[in-house]
Amino acid sequence: MWPNERLLDLLQIEVPIIQAPMAGANGSALAISVSEAGGLGSLPCAMLNEDKMRAEAGNIRQQTANPFSMNFFCHTAVAPTPEQQAAWTAQLTPFYTEYGLDPSDIAPASIRRAFDEGMCELVEDIKPNVVSFHFGLPDAPLLARVKAVGTRVISSATTVNEARWLEANGCDAIIAQGYEAGGHRGMFLTKDITAQAGTMALLPQVVDAVKVPVIAAGGIADGRGIAAAFALGASGVQIGTAYLFTPQSLISDLHRAALHQATDDQTVITNVFSGKPARGLINRIIREVGPMSEDVPPFPTAGAALAPLKAKAEEAGSGDFTSLWSGQAASLARDMDASELTRTLASDALQRLQQLAGK
Amino acid sequence: MWPNERLLDLLQIEVPIIQAPMAGANGSALAISVSEAGGLGSLPCAMLNEDKMRAEAGNIRQQTANPFSMNFFCHTAVAPTPEQQAAWTAQLTPFYTEYGLDPSDIAPASIRRAFDEGMCELVEDIKPNVVSFHFGLPDAPLLARVKAVGTRVISSATTVNEARWLEANGCDAIIAQGYEAGGHRGMFLTKDITAQAGTMALLPQVVDAVKVPVIAAGGIADGRGIAAAFALGASGVQIGTAYLFTPQSLISDLHRAALHQATDDQTVITNVFSGKPARGLINRIIREVGPMSEDVPPFPTAGAALAPLKAKAEEAGSGDFTSLWSGQAASLARDMDASELTRTLASDALQRLQQLAGK
Repeated sequence: MWPNERLLDLLQIEVPIIQAPMAGANGSALAISVSEAGGLGSLPCAMLNEDKMRAEAGNIRQQTANPFSMNFFCHTAVAPTPEQQAAWTAQLTPFYTEYGLDPSDIAPASIRRAFDEGMCELVEDIKPNVVSFHFGLPDAPLLARVKAVGTRVISSATTVNEARWLEANGCDAIIAQGYEAGGHRGMFLTKDITAQAGTMALLPQVVDAVKVPVIAAGGIADGRGIAAAFALGASGVQIGTAYLFTPQSLISDLHRAALHQATDDQTVITNVFSGKPARGLINRIIREVGPMSEDVPPFPTAGAALAPLKAKAEEAGSGDFTSLWSGQAASLARDMDASELTRTLASDALQRLQQLAGK
Repeated sequence: MWPNERLLDLLQIEVPIIQAPMAGANGSALAISVSEAGGLGSLPCAMLNEDKMRAEAGNIRQQTANPFSMNFFCHTAVAPTPEQQAAWTAQLTPFYTEYGLDPSDIAPASIRRAFDEGMCELVEDIKPNVVSFHFGLPDAPLLARVKAVGTRVISSATTVNEARWLEANGCDAIIAQGYEAGGHRGMFLTKDITAQAGTMALLPQVVDAVKVPVIAAGGIADGRGIAAAFALGASGVQIGTAYLFTPQSLISDLHRAALHQATDDQTVITNVFSGKPARGLINRIIREVGPMSEDVPPFPTAGAALAPLKAKAEEAGSGDFTSLWSGQAASLARDMDASELTRTLASDALQRLQQLAGK
């Protein structure tokens, strides 16, 4: 039925669509809905504490018998130098002053945790069908323990070089994350966003470079994009932005309204929200400080200083300081329940594939 | 046979592949070879004088009865201010000194001419089947004269907004130029390269926005990419970089060697070679001055000052100052005669389309 069933076989799913884990924007409800429709639902864990991870994974296990994924970051946390923190404070002080906030409150803090011993124990306990990592892979001993419980491991590559590295280090499948993708770029062997390739170029080059199944991500939001990904050699797709439009996503009304207005040319890759490059809708903080600022402290501590500004602006109905994550194809998305969206995407893609052969 | 024959019908060609016009890198030989294979060969005219245009178009007419295209730029030439020229001179002086050249020789000059009365008369005389424009369209009176001789007019859009504008202003088909594409970006209503969309995202949004046939460009270098473009709704593709590998392209051995080594992550969009953003392989001048410099004079005069550096470096076997134009998918290209390449791309794409339907 699908031109290539390698990912379906590997992950034991019925529909070759992975719901992208979106930290802060989805919990168990979205994952359950997608897994119930035969896709792979994903629980993003980077912004959860262990109690919450356990509770959310428990929800998923309870409400679907189908496979699901847990997603973890595996960055190396870097503390800002006093100079970096001072530069960031200087950048943000005018905004703090404008909102009647005290700039002396600006301090580094992280709301994003890297995969560690505690999370590894939790994975060994829960045994999710799939674990996906972002920003590379954890250290070999931790990765070996994840794999030892029978969990399939996937991670994102933004270059052919990263894809080869992930395969050599044990990934069972690789997400080729094209330039179009929303949210954080998975880059871990390069920092140069100017040389990142679009999905159309990246995907077939990754397919040619590795033996494991390749999952396409970036710019895919309807059946046409899924069909195109298979044409380029993918065994499946990972879709994020389109799922933000579902009632199961946790985004604010403000973020939802911005996505509904989005056109093809309204997102950029910016580091202002976290210290690492991520794609979102252009807003005031990006325009005035970014999109890429050299004064942003290293990931993951930059974002904390934006939280009070975000809260004040959102109270006034403004997304000026909110990370409005989005890929470049938001305008293709539809308001739809996540299960229904998953089934519709799959049937649209299959229909498109038949049409292409003149059937 | 093809899932969508709108472009074939419009341009009266047999294969839905347009050879991208590449000023400085192709002349009549490549266009003839592609048109003879049933695709649309293109003669880039922006860097030719009228005698040469006429001679080259004559060659094509003489050697193939099939349709071909002539391509023109339609930028508004802007002279640099003295301040801009001084800043550029300051940027380049260390390189001039290094090569024993005299920086006082740095002066604005253009080797790229915009479509004008003289070229329009030539088009009226030659009546090419297709004229393609880059950087928008010429003024309405000139455009009307081109259309009056029965020539089909196409141009590039890098955003949905540009696509709508081109359709409203009389384009018969629109090239959706994704971020992956090599050479100059056709941008004419926006200057913001950070918000340019990849082909996977841009193409279906353009297809949804206009009624005329859409041609996909950017990151397409093999049958998989062509099949993917049709999956996304394109009626054809425009391919550049892959044709640089043919014996009919005019690029230097140095450029050819660099393309053979190219990987997915070795190109960037840079303005250092002309003043307008264009994608090429990263080299010394891009690394040390670019990729995007605010000290570059406006298009089209910036490049003249690089010519002596380029000549000196190339004498020593170095491409440090050469515009090594390339899209992001050079590694997918093969060494092949241009006619054979055109036929192979078409048959690979058709075979891929059949495979996708499980046939």
